[in-house]
Amino acid sequence: MPAAVELIAWARRTGLLVVHTKECHRPDLSDCPNAKLLRGKPSLRIGDPGPMGRILIDGEPGADFVPELAPQIGDVVIAKPGKGAFYNTPLEDALRTRNIDRLIFGGVTTEVCVQTSMREANDRGYECLLIEEATGSYYPEFKAQTLAMIRAQGGIVGWTASLASLAG
Amino acid sequence: MPAAVELIAWARRTGLLVVHTKECHRPDLSDCPNAKLLRGKPSLRIGDPGPMGRILIDGEPGADFVPELAPQIGDVVIAKPGKGAFYNTPLEDALRTRNIDRLIFGGVTTEVCVQTSMREANDRGYECLLIEEATGSYYPEFKAQTLAMIRAQGGIVGWTASLASLAG
Repeated sequence: MPAAVELIAWARRTGLLVVHTKECHRPDLSDCPNAKLLRGKPSLRIGDPGPMGRILIDGEPGADFVPELAPQIGDVVIAKPGKGAFYNTPLEDALRTRNIDRLIFGGVTTEVCVQTSMREANDRGYECLLIEEATGSYYPEFKAQTLAMIRAQGGIVGWTASLASLAG
Repeated sequence: MPAAVELIAWARRTGLLVVHTKECHRPDLSDCPNAKLLRGKPSLRIGDPGPMGRILIDGEPGADFVPELAPQIGDVVIAKPGKGAFYNTPLEDALRTRNIDRLIFGGVTTEVCVQTSMREANDRGYECLLIEEATGSYYPEFKAQTLAMIRAQGGIVGWTASLASLAG
């Protein structure tokens, strides 16, 4: 996470748009597919009450950002119902409106939300760069493998780079 | 490929809809993002003439299916401009119209088009199963890693199974 904080600070200094994404659902669950709802433990499903509010529901403390990475005025915040940040969200509109066609990625989890979003972005024609120290996974081997898959075949999904190389 | 042939034969016997996907672009390249067009070797890009017709262009022999896996009447054929089979294609409409909510995947390449399409499908609420022998990659380790990522965290993207277990 320190690297993600540093990446965002660098982006702000550089004058880039900062976009935050969070996976969550509307309180009425109308954007949560049955398949997803039923995949959880029967005792603790999306929308159920948890220690930090209703689980994976937009607006609840548990679905919000950690304070160190909280959005600031001028940032874009995308609530997304899936792993990908593009499907069923206003992200593509937000980027097209600003004529943005190059994206720098960080965040968790590398092989799930980050990878899915990069693949969506790549299909939509964005040039994508993932910052290696600024992304993480529960499974370190999945992170390493995902970075390799992204770069394979001449950048079939995009590129990866170290935070140091960005700032340099 | 023999396993993919067997999988499709099993699906036909079982009365399931068979959907074929092919990555290709319109002859005028209007659905090919610049980022994708420019990523190829300058000497051989999408739309350039090749030994099997214009490269990655819909309708050209090189972008068609191998004879063993050719579509039959009643199948659905999806031409897709990206790695994912859902983005900018009529696939979701084709499935919703038929009330299909469970998908069985095979094909190439495991960690690129197959994985991207499964992730898109999962976000859209489809239950997804990938048949292990019926998918392949240039990189066997990427295939194995992708199968593991799909099944992780209780089927976060879906499930994988052997062809034998399907037919059993």
